[in-house]
Amino acid sequence: MKMKAAVMTGVGTPLQIQEVELAQPKANEVLVKMGATGVCHSDLNALGDETTPKPTILGHEGAGIVAAVGPNVTKVKVGDKVALSWAPYCGTCEFCVTGNVHLCETAFGPMFEGTLLDGTSRLSKNGELIYHNSLLSTFAEYAVVPELSCIRIPDAMPLAQASLIGCGVATGYGAAVHAAKITPGSTVAVFGIGGVGVNAIQGARIAGAAKIIACDMKVANLEIAKKFGATHTIDVAEQNAEEALKELTGGYGVHFAIDCSGHTGATESAWKGTRKGGTVVVVGAFNPAAALQLPAGGFHRVGKILKGSFYGDTQPYRDFPTIAQLYLDGKFMLDELILGRIQLDDINQAFDSFHDCNCINVGRTVVEFSSQEQKEQLKSTDSVVTI
Amino acid sequence: MKMKAAVMTGVGTPLQIQEVELAQPKANEVLVKMGATGVCHSDLNALGDETTPKPTILGHEGAGIVAAVGPNVTKVKVGDKVALSWAPYCGTCEFCVTGNVHLCETAFGPMFEGTLLDGTSRLSKNGELIYHNSLLSTFAEYAVVPELSCIRIPDAMPLAQASLIGCGVATGYGAAVHAAKITPGSTVAVFGIGGVGVNAIQGARIAGAAKIIACDMKVANLEIAKKFGATHTIDVAEQNAEEALKELTGGYGVHFAIDCSGHTGATESAWKGTRKGGTVVVVGAFNPAAALQLPAGGFHRVGKILKGSFYGDTQPYRDFPTIAQLYLDGKFMLDELILGRIQLDDINQAFDSFHDCNCINVGRTVVEFSSQEQKEQLKSTDSVVTI
Repeated sequence: MKMKAAVMTGVGTPLQIQEVELAQPKANEVLVKMGATGVCHSDLNALGDETTPKPTILGHEGAGIVAAVGPNVTKVKVGDKVALSWAPYCGTCEFCVTGNVHLCETAFGPMFEGTLLDGTSRLSKNGELIYHNSLLSTFAEYAVVPELSCIRIPDAMPLAQASLIGCGVATGYGAAVHAAKITPGSTVAVFGIGGVGVNAIQGARIAGAAKIIACDMKVANLEIAKKFGATHTIDVAEQNAEEALKELTGGYGVHFAIDCSGHTGATESAWKGTRKGGTVVVVGAFNPAAALQLPAGGFHRVGKILKGSFYGDTQPYRDFPTIAQLYLDGKFMLDELILGRIQLDDINQAFDSFHDCNCINVGRTVVEFSSQEQKEQLKSTDSVVTI
Repeated sequence: MKMKAAVMTGVGTPLQIQEVELAQPKANEVLVKMGATGVCHSDLNALGDETTPKPTILGHEGAGIVAAVGPNVTKVKVGDKVALSWAPYCGTCEFCVTGNVHLCETAFGPMFEGTLLDGTSRLSKNGELIYHNSLLSTFAEYAVVPELSCIRIPDAMPLAQASLIGCGVATGYGAAVHAAKITPGSTVAVFGIGGVGVNAIQGARIAGAAKIIACDMKVANLEIAKKFGATHTIDVAEQNAEEALKELTGGYGVHFAIDCSGHTGATESAWKGTRKGGTVVVVGAFNPAAALQLPAGGFHRVGKILKGSFYGDTQPYRDFPTIAQLYLDGKFMLDELILGRIQLDDINQAFDSFHDCNCINVGRTVVEFSSQEQKEQLKSTDSVVTI
């Protein structure tokens, strides 16, 4: 089938709106008619990365309606509303069967090679192969994705909000709820208030934390953090984070710290500002050339835990419907994460906005593929595309 | 009452066998007639430490019979056989009530100041105060100790073996079982085969680990490790530990690593040789001037856990009777940890043996206070001392 897509053709150059070909889904694959897709800072990184296979269709957070299914698909059916996960998994390896599908080995080869799980692409233009991105490629009207990347969500869930669940939302929420395992009444520090950090704050709020202390060097971000549930803020450009955290917690330090900043120095502050027996979760990606340095004196004595968390330990089948329902119940803020709504033709505006913004983008520009009227029609299976 | 004790009078000088005075137990304290006490490398460290309050009676691992109890004591009664813990706790602070009595704040002030929990000493000579050590001071015929440091063990438990439970045995066992939470069928690396390391190996063996890989730079220690349950060994002086661990585990690395070495470099090797989602427990004390350096590249992606463990996360009331019963059931090796048995008059021989030994002492010299005949009599409450 033919469809419109935003194609990355070169490093750092604007995406090209083109008509491309999408082959039908193979076994264990699903054709999704995209309803909405968020434009993530990781897309900007991929656009600037020499190693990104080209040409490719970026986009790794999205939601839509199942338009067709390939052979052997059992988890979704045509007409289902779904949110997409950029971390496919096999379901049978050691990691998958121990509750760690986010650590599955399966995803990584294809993810870096720009194919689906079978090592081939469904995307092309005039016979020339186009690479997938994160096994999704949501900057297009349709996407063929692995069945296990495609998670049914409640019909009542609006697609723009749903499109955000699969990336920073799940990562931040999961870092708080699943990786740190924040407990009610506890004290929490969140370092790095961006697209992941605000959702770690939301996770902490939902988990019942008594104090949620946002730590960032940009005052604007700290103000945003308060809207999402931070009870206290620390301007780390002005204050010593360790001392400030201890002062806010009776001298002990926090029970939990989540570092979303990607800076080893922030993790070191988080470590020092956490109490004995406390847990520090690192969910941000460090500069690979850096080294994380922790003080050795008394290391064993304080009984602390340092934990790296990929994708916030997200198990999409558990977490996506849960987050959607929390939103529908008024407990999870997603509306506030949508900074603007645009059409696919205008997608380069979303990339430009990263450069315009003086602070890390906490929210997202969302690309919508249909008018409200069309979205309502999509809920009926009669309207889905037959390929 | 008067008793014989080995008194530390100066830094690095031999202990003096003296007759000293022991006051009766106050509220929540217990008088224990010592049956046996192990001489630990930490005693050697304390003997060489300028900051150790002097004069003092060292010794922090021991077992004996309850000879008298102070007011309010409810957990033990005269005649009970008990093993001692050097980490007293309050039972009501945040740490104690969350299953972390090993992190209780209460112990630390008195531990460094050489008193019991009320800030005073029961020990003296000719009216001159003698300091306690670790709230125990087991290098004496009797000890007045906090009730919660005094844990009843089965009557069938021999006192020499019981005397070892409270220090390196519980620490190593607990690091494996409670801190790492080793699972059946898993792969485990233990770095640093000393008094703690061999018992981490035993913990791993009892927890059902499939492969237990001992890592040390001394071949003699690796041979000892095999006797305690190591299935494989890595001579880290000759082999790259990370590569060797991966080779033994299908390229993945181990599920669990326990570093008992006290060297940050070993922890760094353990970290690299652990698989995605794996756990590294640090139970050894690092040099305070050192820094632990972990590679930052991909830190969050691998989802590993680094955990400091004080005292092997030991909860004495849970663990001491369990370890004693494991010994009585033939599942925990304690006989093999006793390198020699001496009388209190000869205690300096035990200190000399540390210097004679070319490798870290894996086992212990045990000081026994009574002949076998006397020990049998001690089981009868008729024979306990009345103060």
